Amino acid sequence: MDAIDLSDASKALDLANIRFQLIRLEDTITFHLIERVQFPLNATIYVPGGVDIGECNTSLFDWMLREQERLQSLVRRYQSPDEYPFFPEVLQEPILKPLNYPQILHPNHVNVNAQLRDCYIKHILPAACTHSESQENYGSSATCDVMTIQSLSRRIHFGKFVAEAKFQQETERFVKLIKEEDRQGIDEAITNAAVERKVLERLRLKAKTYGTDPDLGANGSSKVNADAVVAMYKDWVIPLTKEVEVEYLMQRLKGTQWE
Amino acid sequence: MDAIDLSDASKALDLANIRFQLIRLEDTITFHLIERVQFPLNATIYVPGGVDIGECNTSLFDWMLREQERLQSLVRRYQSPDEYPFFPEVLQEPILKPLNYPQILHPNHVNVNAQLRDCYIKHILPAACTHSESQENYGSSATCDVMTIQSLSRRIHFGKFVAEAKFQQETERFVKLIKEEDRQGIDEAITNAAVERKVLERLRLKAKTYGTDPDLGANGSSKVNADAVVAMYKDWVIPLTKEVEVEYLMQRLKGTQWE
Repeated sequence: MDAIDLSDASKALDLANIRFQLIRLEDTITFHLIERVQFPLNATIYVPGGVDIGECNTSLFDWMLREQERLQSLVRRYQSPDEYPFFPEVLQEPILKPLNYPQILHPNHVNVNAQLRDCYIKHILPAACTHSESQENYGSSATCDVMTIQSLSRRIHFGKFVAEAKFQQETERFVKLIKEEDRQGIDEAITNAAVERKVLERLRLKAKTYGTDPDLGANGSSKVNADAVVAMYKDWVIPLTKEVEVEYLMQRLKGTQWE
Repeated sequence: MDAIDLSDASKALDLANIRFQLIRLEDTITFHLIERVQFPLNATIYVPGGVDIGECNTSLFDWMLREQERLQSLVRRYQSPDEYPFFPEVLQEPILKPLNYPQILHPNHVNVNAQLRDCYIKHILPAACTHSESQENYGSSATCDVMTIQSLSRRIHFGKFVAEAKFQQETERFVKLIKEEDRQGIDEAITNAAVERKVLERLRLKAKTYGTDPDLGANGSSKVNADAVVAMYKDWVIPLTKEVEVEYLMQRLKGTQWE
């Protein structure tokens, strides 16, 4: 199957296509995290002023992420409805002509990147990085961080497509929950515990498979801690995705016939 | 084992460390190529002026690679002795303080990135990209391209460390070959056909393993064409690495006591 086609609303909201894309993003996230954790944590790059970059209120990590977003906005990354910036204030006018995306999602301003950035630095990375600090790999680490956190953000905000598809499938049920502002009820309506268990099992298998040199097999050391990868999804990616889904739905009726 | 430590000459020239790094780079390259080939070839992004970016003599691919190098030079990517730019003319003064790398390699100006860029566009990508073009993913494709070609470049130029280590092990033999300008003899001295066969076998295994969702196993379609990955190494990466080794050695005696 190809990468999901966001230029076609019916394909973009087909739950089989969304499911394929979410599963495929697990590979992307695992690959990028494996690349990141070949370097030590290098905690100082997440501290504003921790590394001297000439901006005392900015960490090297934030600088790198911000400058990558500035550059990637030029090739219209943030015009795609599945991409959300961490630093919206630096986005530039693209040098490429805009693509005409159909209106797939309801207008909304859901963006959980601030929470993602916070838990990435405080929880996800410290659990995943196991190498001791013996040399400076600041630039390399920050470069891998950008790839990793961007792929996590894309996975989490894909929840909007999931929520829209579910809303269209069971409109009456969701309209009632939304009007009652029943976030708990919405959360229950979008939760499938069996699917979540399956995601975590699959992720453990991917972390072990992609993290092990197949030529060495059981003799090779794993490049990534599978427990940390599973915990990343269980404690952060899945809850943040649900938050995106719930908040998207809470904004779903604004400016429509139901308001 | 950690990422190779280039701040310590004895570690950087230890053939076991170099071998570990080269094998680890196979994973990196395979991961990035898998990410790239989820998109179609998008041949137009490699044609100068093919996509309108406001610079009629520049392709979108070259623009992206050049601007990434400009940005990454600021976090001292090209001060590392294993990183070589495609666009040296755009490199900036780093915002990070320089690291003090010891002099590990002999001064040289070997850089095969022009050839790598050429075969990447003409041969490696067309063989690896199998998805039909149904939508524009120009920015995404070019972003993945940068990661892929940078990792290939790093792998290939690691040949300098291999060559230096071999030179130090068998100095007399290489000095004689270099003085005789016997490139063919040097090529033979650095070639180990059994090791090359082993590299290609391992690469096929990695392409299959990392390219298949382990949850689907044999039922899953492969994300990357293993033949194309093996051909990339056999026809381009290994020959270019040898060219780096031979040319590095040809410059090895310049400005030294042997000249």
